[in-house]
Order: sequence, then C-alpha cells, then structure tokens
Amino acid sequence: MRHKLEDVRLLAPVIPRSKVIGIGRNYADHAAELGNEVPPAPLMFLKPNTSVVGPGDPVVLPSFSDEISYESELAVIIGRICKDVPIERVDDVVFGYTCANDLTARDIQKTDNQWARAKGFDTSCPIGPWIETELDTENLAVRGWLDGELMQDGTTSQMIWGVKELVSYVSQAFTLLPGDIILTGTPAGVGLINEGQRYDVEIEGIGRLSNPVRR
Amino acid sequence: MRHKLEDVRLLAPVIPRSKVIGIGRNYADHAAELGNEVPPAPLMFLKPNTSVVGPGDPVVLPSFSDEISYESELAVIIGRICKDVPIERVDDVVFGYTCANDLTARDIQKTDNQWARAKGFDTSCPIGPWIETELDTENLAVRGWLDGELMQDGTTSQMIWGVKELVSYVSQAFTLLPGDIILTGTPAGVGLINEGQRYDVEIEGIGRLSNPVRR
Repeated sequence: MRHKLEDVRLLAPVIPRSKVIGIGRNYADHAAELGNEVPPAPLMFLKPNTSVVGPGDPVVLPSFSDEISYESELAVIIGRICKDVPIERVDDVVFGYTCANDLTARDIQKTDNQWARAKGFDTSCPIGPWIETELDTENLAVRGWLDGELMQDGTTSQMIWGVKELVSYVSQAFTLLPGDIILTGTPAGVGLINEGQRYDVEIEGIGRLSNPVRR
Repeated sequence: MRHKLEDVRLLAPVIPRSKVIGIGRNYADHAAELGNEVPPAPLMFLKPNTSVVGPGDPVVLPSFSDEISYESELAVIIGRICKDVPIERVDDVVFGYTCANDLTARDIQKTDNQWARAKGFDTSCPIGPWIETELDTENLAVRGWLDGELMQDGTTSQMIWGVKELVSYVSQAFTLLPGDIILTGTPAGVGLINEGQRYDVEIEGIGRLSNPVRR
C-alpha cells in the first residue's frame, strides 16, 4: 500500500545500537568563524544514541544552556560490522546517507573540558528524512534555513576530509556496527536557535530535515 | 544447576544498549599525579558500547597508541529509564555496581582535542566480574594490581563527587537507559600496561576483575 508523504509521520530512519561519531571543524570556513584552527587530524567526538530524533521531532532546549547552535551536516550510515577499513573499501561498508543537525550547546562546549554534554543532550541529533543509498558525495550542496532564512550554504567539496577518509579514519578508532552514524562536519553560518523557531537542513540529492525548537 | 566458578567463563555482566559515561579527575590525588586541576563540575566523557568487554577478555592495545594506562574504577549500572534524577531518588534508578578498568591512551588523550579515541577504543572498558545489587558505596577499597603488584589503593570515600551526586548530574545531561554504565573515576597510582601483562581491579564488596593485555 502506498501513502502520500503528507499523510504519514516519518520517524528517525535509524536509531544506532551503538554510537554517533561527530567530526569537528571539517570545513575551514566554519573553523575560522569560531576562531578555531583546522585540526591536524579529524577531530572526533561521540554523541549517544539517546540524542537521536527524527524529522519533525522537536529539539528540546536543555535547561543547562543558553546558547544552542544548529549545524547542518551530511550523515553517513554504516551498513556492516567493520574495523580498519581502507579508503578504497569504504563504499562496501556504507549503507547510505541522510541529513543531520549536530546541535551544540556553544556555552557549555567552552566551559566543559569534554563535549559530551554540549553535543550529547537528548534531541541534539535530528536525522532524516530518509536514507539515500545511491549518492555521490563529492560535491553536494549542504544548506540550512532558520525559519525559512538561508543561514548555511556550503558544499561537501569544501570538507577538509571527505567521506571516504573519515569513515576509514573512524574505523581505525572503533569497530563500527550497522546503524552507526558518522556526522561529517558543518559549513560556515552557524548560529543560535531559540524556542518557537524551526531549523531545516537540506542536502542535495537527499532531501530536507525540518525540526521545530521548544523548551 | 549449579557450576563451580572455575568451571565457567563469565561474560561482561551487561553490554549497554546506549552508553558508558566516564567521569574524569574525581579523585584529587589522581588529578594531581597527572598535573591536572580538580574540575569545577564532574568532567564527563563518553565511551561507546563497543568498548565493553568482560572478565578475562584480553585488552587489545590499539596500534595508534604507545601509552595505554589502566584506571581502576567503581562502575554504576543503571536499572531504569530516567532523566533529571534528584540525589535522594538515585537509589531508585541504580541496578547495581561492578568493577571497571577505564583504559586510556595517555599519549592520544594529550594530542586529540576530545577523548573519543583515547578512551573509546575497542576493549577499553572491561567490566565485571558480576553486578552487586546490594552495596553501600560510601567507603569501599578500590585497588588495582599489575601482574600481582599493588599499583592503586584508594577508597570511594576519596571521591570528589559521590555516586549519588554523579548519577544525578549525569541524568541532567542525558536520558539514562537500563544497562547504561557510569564510571566514577580512578584513585592515584595509574601507569602504563604492556603486552603480556595482566591488570586486576578489585573493589571491596564486589570482587576482582582480571584482564590480560595483548597486541
């Protein structure tokens, strides 16, 4: 049976049974806008699976922060158990791609030594609207809109480390399980979101992920 | 049917479906031995569930580090879905306690901005040998032996933040799921382990967790 898209509610296309691995400062213009250097190797951090929500789900602002920022990102969904994957074998372990918003408590990120709380709070990882399994990720527009206003307008070609390098690098640190998610970093244009606003992440060839924000 | 302990192989008493939350620098003497200040609030970091192994399982030294350190710790196992747990309700959400070794790539911890890789590699979180469900955690000896030589000899009474404060604090950052593990920090005496050695963590009232180390 087929349904019209507007007649159904989409859920998060996957909830990882293990982990979300984020990559910080993977677009030079974004690193620069926050006054950060480009790191010498991919800057990895972890978000727990309790941070994942789906399209249309509210982002709930945590009480411990006054500065929650959006970050539009291409997300890679792992399809196989793997470890130490060479760059030329990455396509064999990737299931597909989706849009993600790597929400970040910018104030807490500065004061906490580690980013667990700043990047791992509940609802800090909306993903969706679906997983695209056939996609060339070399040069895709990555855009973000705050209440309909274009705030981020980059392309995956600006990534310092591309998808293949990142998956290979991350797989040297951890065994990856099917459903694990790798967030590939955000282009310039990040800023704060507030209660009552909506943020949309759109990636060329995938679609648009839209989430309202509430307290 | 009953079996003798020496006739069976114990597995990790739990593999979390979500996360391991570590707490850094929760014993003043350990913070001091590494030249670190005591943090103003619990220093949280995440280890993925792919880091968890059981009693007797080998710790496999990752190729990216030359300095893997042991850390003997009391681990708290969560028993209920919970969020924002007040200190006086913590006992309601704790399932029990076990021993843990919070293995850390000390060199990588210094060079990577975030500790995902330094503290999250495969086999970096041995736990066991079982979960003790009735335990007063106020003043328990926490000891660690490297090849039978006593290296760490502390007590939980030296923790800067106790179990109740930690569970409450962590639950303000994340929804906790049954099986989630909170590592409560390590006392002084940390040092490196090498291929062919064995490290034992013993906590008074629980038992002894012993793991060999290999490449």
